[in-house]
Amino acid sequence: MSSEKFDAVDIIGIKRDRGTLSPEQIDWTIDAYTRGAIADEQMAALNMAILLNGMSRAEISRWTSAMIASGERMDFSSLGKPTTDKHSTGGVGDKITLPLAPLVAVFGVAVPQLSGRGLGHTGGTLDKLEAIPGWRANLSNEEMMAQLADVGAVICAAGTGLAPADKKLYALRDVTGTVEAIPLIASSIMSKKIAEGTGSLVLDVKVGSGAFMKTEANARELAETMVALGKDAGVNTVALLTNMATPLGLTAGNAIEVQESVDVLAGGGPADVVELTVRLAEEMLAAAGLPDADPAAALADGRAMDVWRRMISAQGGDPDAALPRARESETIYAAADGVLVELDALSVGVAAWRLGAGRARKEDVVQAGAGVVMHAKPGAQVRAGEPLMTLLTDTPEKFDRAREALENAVVIAPEGSRPAQKLIIDRIS
Amino acid sequence: MSSEKFDAVDIIGIKRDRGTLSPEQIDWTIDAYTRGAIADEQMAALNMAILLNGMSRAEISRWTSAMIASGERMDFSSLGKPTTDKHSTGGVGDKITLPLAPLVAVFGVAVPQLSGRGLGHTGGTLDKLEAIPGWRANLSNEEMMAQLADVGAVICAAGTGLAPADKKLYALRDVTGTVEAIPLIASSIMSKKIAEGTGSLVLDVKVGSGAFMKTEANARELAETMVALGKDAGVNTVALLTNMATPLGLTAGNAIEVQESVDVLAGGGPADVVELTVRLAEEMLAAAGLPDADPAAALADGRAMDVWRRMISAQGGDPDAALPRARESETIYAAADGVLVELDALSVGVAAWRLGAGRARKEDVVQAGAGVVMHAKPGAQVRAGEPLMTLLTDTPEKFDRAREALENAVVIAPEGSRPAQKLIIDRIS
Repeated sequence: MSSEKFDAVDIIGIKRDRGTLSPEQIDWTIDAYTRGAIADEQMAALNMAILLNGMSRAEISRWTSAMIASGERMDFSSLGKPTTDKHSTGGVGDKITLPLAPLVAVFGVAVPQLSGRGLGHTGGTLDKLEAIPGWRANLSNEEMMAQLADVGAVICAAGTGLAPADKKLYALRDVTGTVEAIPLIASSIMSKKIAEGTGSLVLDVKVGSGAFMKTEANARELAETMVALGKDAGVNTVALLTNMATPLGLTAGNAIEVQESVDVLAGGGPADVVELTVRLAEEMLAAAGLPDADPAAALADGRAMDVWRRMISAQGGDPDAALPRARESETIYAAADGVLVELDALSVGVAAWRLGAGRARKEDVVQAGAGVVMHAKPGAQVRAGEPLMTLLTDTPEKFDRAREALENAVVIAPEGSRPAQKLIIDRIS
Repeated sequence: MSSEKFDAVDIIGIKRDRGTLSPEQIDWTIDAYTRGAIADEQMAALNMAILLNGMSRAEISRWTSAMIASGERMDFSSLGKPTTDKHSTGGVGDKITLPLAPLVAVFGVAVPQLSGRGLGHTGGTLDKLEAIPGWRANLSNEEMMAQLADVGAVICAAGTGLAPADKKLYALRDVTGTVEAIPLIASSIMSKKIAEGTGSLVLDVKVGSGAFMKTEANARELAETMVALGKDAGVNTVALLTNMATPLGLTAGNAIEVQESVDVLAGGGPADVVELTVRLAEEMLAAAGLPDADPAAALADGRAMDVWRRMISAQGGDPDAALPRARESETIYAAADGVLVELDALSVGVAAWRLGAGRARKEDVVQAGAGVVMHAKPGAQVRAGEPLMTLLTDTPEKFDRAREALENAVVIAPEGSRPAQKLIIDRIS
């Protein structure tokens, strides 16, 4: 006889038949999978049953706790200041973390921003920052704590010790068509964020073609689930639903997104990037206990830029170094006069990826200078023959496939056509 | 780039999102899984999606064809006589194959009955026949053909070359909670039966506590699916839905079921076993082109017994040898006067299994003499203190667990209570 408390086939059968797992069954499932007593094929069947039949809030909460318990937890209480963090579900041109972390740190709140690399058409924050000569993503826990105490903001790679069950489970979901399960997405994100030890958390849940969630209903369900999980774990959590039908800002790539972020820190930059950065900073500061802070002023007067420069320097980067530039460029022109009513986020994301800004497999190397620069955004008047986008790469053989991705990306309509969509769709708390 | 025609994650996504797989996608899926290009965890996720979202008739038909194509096909055309076969979905006390195969062969129809061993509470035909001293289950293809030409009936183990994809898939389903998917059950059974090369097929689909299908609706869906698959493949196929709420006959075990089968071949035996044997023989003979054959007469006049003796002898068995007997027995008595209205098939099956007649794992050895002999069936008048069942085993420490399985198996009601259920519920063609 096996000495296991439960049998994997029974656990699978409960979710297959629309039943509810007990807390003890969930704890056993995560623990047994982590140590190999549940096989990958069994977990894959269970994940598909969860995807199709759902989980109750109580089940998702316990599933998340069990994943947190599979690894270590960080603790920032010795810092003596509040901590806050932001998580975006990923989009095209989403460089918000770069200006946001130093902006929030201006107000004495610590921002321990553990980030990832890009895979597929959404970029990765670490890939963007690595365009800065000398900057390094990997810090020891001690280096991270010292930087939080001194500078107040850190953007670095997550260690492997946080929620190892999630790491194993995510790799499995990726190859078994079960990434799209909202209970599993929510518990994956929140187990890492809660284990990271932040006191408050603002979630930026993207909706639209360039986002993981294509519909507002799905994005809302994911946001509500994650906010509830955060609160269950004692983390003050709010979520914004934001538009990802079109890219954020005028750049999608790595070095070009760093430059756009620096423009925002210098008091300029595209209006949508500024709007979302300021709004997320307000939410993070309020969640951390500073509802009256004025982050727009800290962008305007250069205080955020000061923290940015110290943050980049602390991780070996030179904030004054010239950023890498792509060796080759091609321009895409407007085919007609009118109003640009659509500039599809997914198409731009795929084009930037194909130009070399992103990776298809984890082991691929990204091109720092590659990407797409946009010269007009939805709502703008354009004239036939004007430049709409510039494609950048070191490897010109990539232009053709990038152009293909953009074939149906742009819609120009007669003047007076529909207005631009709202950037911030809703707030969930 | 991979040289595969399709991607497993895309295939999983189609069934996850309630889509339909193309014939080419199905062929690739079965082939790729058989050669290891689809991993077990991917197939497990796909199986769960199929279980929960279903497959169309056309998908099931192609899935079955693809499994047949994964291995060899047998061909009985050189025999110069019609072939027919019977498949039961498994029940308690289901020894019907033993008298049925020789009975049908009396009429010059070849019966190539490839059978399995028992697992869990349902017995296996090969386990029963192995209670006969000297009898062997494993024949070469040449031995099988020679016996079909000479004796006309053979009951033996299926070779490993038929539908190897099904073999791999069944083992996976067994550990991933996906056995219960009707499309997968139907294609598993029918791929083996069609590859076996029979010209006609009669399916005995059991319904009730002792059966795999507990409800008539599920059994009917399975039967209809399998009949359609048979016809698609050019095999003349009919199905009977038969009652498995209570065991078939008065014995559940191995040697005791052989003895009961010999009683039937001798013109006696329990009425339900005789009824189902004759009815299935009529169906098989009609499906093979002999609608006017009279199998009841061939049981009564000893012709079926003659074929039985030749069939057993041809496989090394001694039809006159004494059958093994269990060393120990215990009796269960009626607790009240009245009508026996219920004798639960699952309970009796589990009791026989626990007494040693069945196996929990493939590598277990069964006891030839173990099992349960019933002294009354539903509809019978009983008096308090009369023997209801005799439990048989070589290992008396097993009596307690067998008695536990039978605790709620028997219901005795006042006289005049409900009549016995019909044995043959419906016919599907």
